[in-house]
Amino acid sequence: MKIVLIAVIAALAILAVAFLAVPLFTPPEPGGAADPDLLYQVSVIDALMQGAYDGVIPVGEMMRHGDFGLGTFDALDGEMVVLDGTCYRVGMDGTAQPVNGSILVPYADITTFERETVIPGISGSNLSQVTAALDAALPSENYFLAIRIDGTFPAVKARSVPRQEKPYPPLTEAVSHQAVFQWYNVTGTVVGFYSPPYTEGIDVTGYHLHFLSADRSKGGHLLDLAVESTPVSLDMTPRFTVILPETGDFTGMDLSGDLSEETAQVEK
Amino acid sequence: MKIVLIAVIAALAILAVAFLAVPLFTPPEPGGAADPDLLYQVSVIDALMQGAYDGVIPVGEMMRHGDFGLGTFDALDGEMVVLDGTCYRVGMDGTAQPVNGSILVPYADITTFERETVIPGISGSNLSQVTAALDAALPSENYFLAIRIDGTFPAVKARSVPRQEKPYPPLTEAVSHQAVFQWYNVTGTVVGFYSPPYTEGIDVTGYHLHFLSADRSKGGHLLDLAVESTPVSLDMTPRFTVILPETGDFTGMDLSGDLSEETAQVEK
Repeated sequence: MKIVLIAVIAALAILAVAFLAVPLFTPPEPGGAADPDLLYQVSVIDALMQGAYDGVIPVGEMMRHGDFGLGTFDALDGEMVVLDGTCYRVGMDGTAQPVNGSILVPYADITTFERETVIPGISGSNLSQVTAALDAALPSENYFLAIRIDGTFPAVKARSVPRQEKPYPPLTEAVSHQAVFQWYNVTGTVVGFYSPPYTEGIDVTGYHLHFLSADRSKGGHLLDLAVESTPVSLDMTPRFTVILPETGDFTGMDLSGDLSEETAQVEK
Repeated sequence: MKIVLIAVIAALAILAVAFLAVPLFTPPEPGGAADPDLLYQVSVIDALMQGAYDGVIPVGEMMRHGDFGLGTFDALDGEMVVLDGTCYRVGMDGTAQPVNGSILVPYADITTFERETVIPGISGSNLSQVTAALDAALPSENYFLAIRIDGTFPAVKARSVPRQEKPYPPLTEAVSHQAVFQWYNVTGTVVGFYSPPYTEGIDVTGYHLHFLSADRSKGGHLLDLAVESTPVSLDMTPRFTVILPETGDFTGMDLSGDLSEETAQVEK
């Protein structure tokens, strides 16, 4: 009996070692993949503004850092919406499709969404009124906040951007060829972030919102929005990691200018 | 014999489990502690400028993210220099002492220093000439660079800051009570960073340098420096993580202003 007992303990112990050892040999992850209170950002907005559209990391690697976010794809090929752990691409026809994990990402913000705060129903007949209502309810203006609004919206205006060819034009020029979509009484989710003022140059400060319909068939970068008594879920992320491009045009780019006005223009 | 053998295996296996299990129960680390190409930053400069001197994380936790860096301590109690894995505090008398891992840190930049690039001997009779020589040799202006200069310097002027009492005054006022030290033909190490222009508000953009003598007895925040034909080692860090304070005055602080001029003033 003793032998059997010892053998069982030994077998269990060896199995436990084998099982526990697996995560130990995973290479260290920049940005702490498992931290739900971390915003993981690919590149900086001032580089995207100047045409740094070359992908930096694959979608699959990005998705290890969260289940919720937005961005764009290699060569500025459409708008990205990440919702409930799936990454969607919205093309120039406004349709959304889940993407392959190998597609490269030149710019994105992603986090693990946790419904920490719920703002009771807000209303607004355009995006300015909606963001003013959000402003009044923010717990603090000094943290990144992930913003999720699920509901049926009286009006949603969204856009997508066309794939660019090298040499890449600046974003102001690329978005002049955007496609704009308008939907009424559409059910879906607003997916986005509030970024604090001191992140200017790194992020779209203030609100940056994308949209995905409830049937996951359409969406885009939000240009306008009407909301009627719909609650808003917020997730504060007190830590953020930025991954800078190491290839492409980023290294030699002049990133010393103030592009805040141009950024506000292309985002709205 | 079989029983002994099985017992030995079981004992070894149990020990292995116990040993391997320890790191698994460490909470996930924001910023990926083991990533040598990551700059780990505590708080943002605009908050420190406005008196956010409450410590955010202990020195011991910060040191898991690197072996090289600079910053300050809870209540602005002296200048921090991290060199070769030891964290030193320079007090108002200019002396350096290794610190206890439990002391809290309100602001710091730390990374794992790897000598990636060596700029051949640079010279300059003051800090402006030294940074101009560095400017001309930087591989890119768009990444954080850790900067290490080991040598005997014709002149070093450094400062430390006095511990503050609540309610904390802004940094411009606190540094008006700084102590200034001047040393000639001193052997030691310049420890610091170059931060890219788009990090304004988050970091001291351009050069932020501290000093520690070779015997580890004195140092401070560099105010002036003469260098004679001394090589400079650089380490590019293409990823950065910022940890925001979650307590204290940070949450309600107005961080929307442009404090770049005041920052340049207190750092020089």
